[in-house]
Amino acid sequence: MKASVATGHQTLSSEIVPIGSTRLDRWALERIQQTVASAPLRFALWDGFEIAPKAGPPVATIVFRNRRALFSWVWDPDLNFGEAYMFGAVEIRGDLESTLEAVYRGLVTKPRPWWLWQPPNSVRAAKENVHHHYDLGNEFYRLWLDQNMVYTCAYFPTPDCSLEDAQIAKMDLVCRKLHLKPGEHVVEAGCGWGTLALFMAKRYGVSVQAFNISTEQVAYARSRADKEGLGDRVEFIEDDYRNVQGRHDVFVSVGMLEHVGLADFSTLSAVIDRSLGEGGRGLLHFIGRNQPTPLNPWIRRRIFPGAYPPTLHEVFEQVLEPQGFSVLDVENLRLHYAKTLGHWCERFDGASDRVVTMFDDTFVRAWRLYLAGAQAAFTTGTMQLFQVLFARGASNAIPWTRVDG
Amino acid sequence: MKASVATGHQTLSSEIVPIGSTRLDRWALERIQQTVASAPLRFALWDGFEIAPKAGPPVATIVFRNRRALFSWVWDPDLNFGEAYMFGAVEIRGDLESTLEAVYRGLVTKPRPWWLWQPPNSVRAAKENVHHHYDLGNEFYRLWLDQNMVYTCAYFPTPDCSLEDAQIAKMDLVCRKLHLKPGEHVVEAGCGWGTLALFMAKRYGVSVQAFNISTEQVAYARSRADKEGLGDRVEFIEDDYRNVQGRHDVFVSVGMLEHVGLADFSTLSAVIDRSLGEGGRGLLHFIGRNQPTPLNPWIRRRIFPGAYPPTLHEVFEQVLEPQGFSVLDVENLRLHYAKTLGHWCERFDGASDRVVTMFDDTFVRAWRLYLAGAQAAFTTGTMQLFQVLFARGASNAIPWTRVDG
Repeated sequence: MKASVATGHQTLSSEIVPIGSTRLDRWALERIQQTVASAPLRFALWDGFEIAPKAGPPVATIVFRNRRALFSWVWDPDLNFGEAYMFGAVEIRGDLESTLEAVYRGLVTKPRPWWLWQPPNSVRAAKENVHHHYDLGNEFYRLWLDQNMVYTCAYFPTPDCSLEDAQIAKMDLVCRKLHLKPGEHVVEAGCGWGTLALFMAKRYGVSVQAFNISTEQVAYARSRADKEGLGDRVEFIEDDYRNVQGRHDVFVSVGMLEHVGLADFSTLSAVIDRSLGEGGRGLLHFIGRNQPTPLNPWIRRRIFPGAYPPTLHEVFEQVLEPQGFSVLDVENLRLHYAKTLGHWCERFDGASDRVVTMFDDTFVRAWRLYLAGAQAAFTTGTMQLFQVLFARGASNAIPWTRVDG
Repeated sequence: MKASVATGHQTLSSEIVPIGSTRLDRWALERIQQTVASAPLRFALWDGFEIAPKAGPPVATIVFRNRRALFSWVWDPDLNFGEAYMFGAVEIRGDLESTLEAVYRGLVTKPRPWWLWQPPNSVRAAKENVHHHYDLGNEFYRLWLDQNMVYTCAYFPTPDCSLEDAQIAKMDLVCRKLHLKPGEHVVEAGCGWGTLALFMAKRYGVSVQAFNISTEQVAYARSRADKEGLGDRVEFIEDDYRNVQGRHDVFVSVGMLEHVGLADFSTLSAVIDRSLGEGGRGLLHFIGRNQPTPLNPWIRRRIFPGAYPPTLHEVFEQVLEPQGFSVLDVENLRLHYAKTLGHWCERFDGASDRVVTMFDDTFVRAWRLYLAGAQAAFTTGTMQLFQVLFARGASNAIPWTRVDG
């Protein structure tokens, strides 16, 4: 281990320390255990030394394979939990998702907003951030998303609904909340592989301009539009949401707001305002928080650079209020996202042999951690999924009562 | 008119100026007309001088009966519109509610939050504020409220539902959103004449502690509980919401938050937090705004001292977020409040002869202005009615999907 530190390795390794643990190592393990004191987790060192949970039988054992992993975790657990797991320097013996749930529930000190500033996402940075995640290859996502390629929270009318049906139910819910009418014009900011845009055009008879800065996704979406004969009513535009032009009846954004970043909320606000006519309305579907909290630094480094899940107050204060928009309806679907992620985890695990050949072991571990961690975050209430329906403040062309279920 | 100013009258009078208008008077009228330039309203002076609306036929004529009313309006229209109408110094020839709608829609400069600070409502001030409005006599409110005495926004499942049924539908909507279960304990902050508390106990089998600082309302509520044999399950407590004690399953407040005032939001937040157990949840039903805006000063002076309708961001940032509550559901029912107020206005007008004998003409004009003004404010989107459902952030005992309709 000393050699590894001395040679300045930049990443944690899965190498096992060939020597027994010291009193200092055991003290460090004790400290780590105390940060999640009430969690039913066993902690162990490379030589078999263990600390049993304070209450109940353990749901899993977290094993540190070497000293570097141990002390990197003491130093910066938020970042190095992920780093150590990703590079195999920490092993989790037991179910990953249950372990992460136990961690979230047991955390003595919740991450607090002592430093919330993030640099604004310039148009170029936004493109790089999106490229990092969404341009991993359509083949990769096809392995574990539903057949329609929807990479956002689904809506399960009943808990035993299939993922395929739940994604369709989600799109339908969005359209019903927006009361889309044939002939209306919709602009979509961040359209993924184009599934919602095509759905709105086909099922609700609207025309859509859909924006996305992921080259791979836009290419895929365009070929679908052609195949389905919707090329005249759905236009996929490879450009930043900040370049949305024209006046539309509806502004919709599903799963993009969490990538915008607080620093650009006022820009987004102005874009929505100039995009909507007098009877304009919109829907924002995004991952959020109950309290302002920085996104986990490991997720920011490895999975979603530039991302920030906001609270409702941040969105209302900085995006909707400045333009006098009226909030009509908010729904929190976090348990639906936990279920969606459960499906994705299962499919991802089933496809992990294929993913290893496309990338490598480290990638697979990182993505398992991200998916299981997100599932645990939504299950434990650490993250929220909000759908916000809004309209021009003076418009009375708003629903009299809400759509059901 | 000069004499009236010289003798230092504190109120505007309905006296008509016996002399013709001057160029200065006409200039003032022109200025007033410009503040609502696009409104289809005719403005007139005591001697018959008129300014026609710039577009369309007038929906009404606003007549200034004397110079003092005219210049007081130029000086402080937000306050003196109400003062002048209330004392008969301004006459509205045409439908009052339509006139006020036209004013709201035509306002060139919306009231902006240049000065939002209001003094905190001490327990004593809160009692005085409530006494001012809610202790006008149960006989008075019985003349124009529904038979169950509910003085908050109703919920009309269909637009032609009666006011009586719509108030029951509103109470049922609140209970269904909260998923009340028999045997649970509910605390209600601000319970009016006790209608919701009794409804929850009777229809949903819960027990209720209901707080109110209006002496008249609490006495009435208690006698109803006795009459209905619910005295053992519904306790009406004549005390401030800040003195709520004990742990409960549910915190509900319908039509009180707008009387709390921003300065006391953190206190309310702490009260809700200490009142709720681990699986706790709650519902706040309140008049709100799309943007932070001071309450009209005439309404504050004559109708609701100490009141402030907040935005959602203010409520979330200052009441729910500090305790880590999770927002589950928000619904905006402003058009339902416009309809509710329409019913109240109609009943109030029908009972105005009785009201004159209980109070006087000035009181009747003030209340007509308040009710019609509120109706216009909700119709034009100047005011909102929010229902916010929330729960402990870590609780998964939350609805899987929302209740319908």
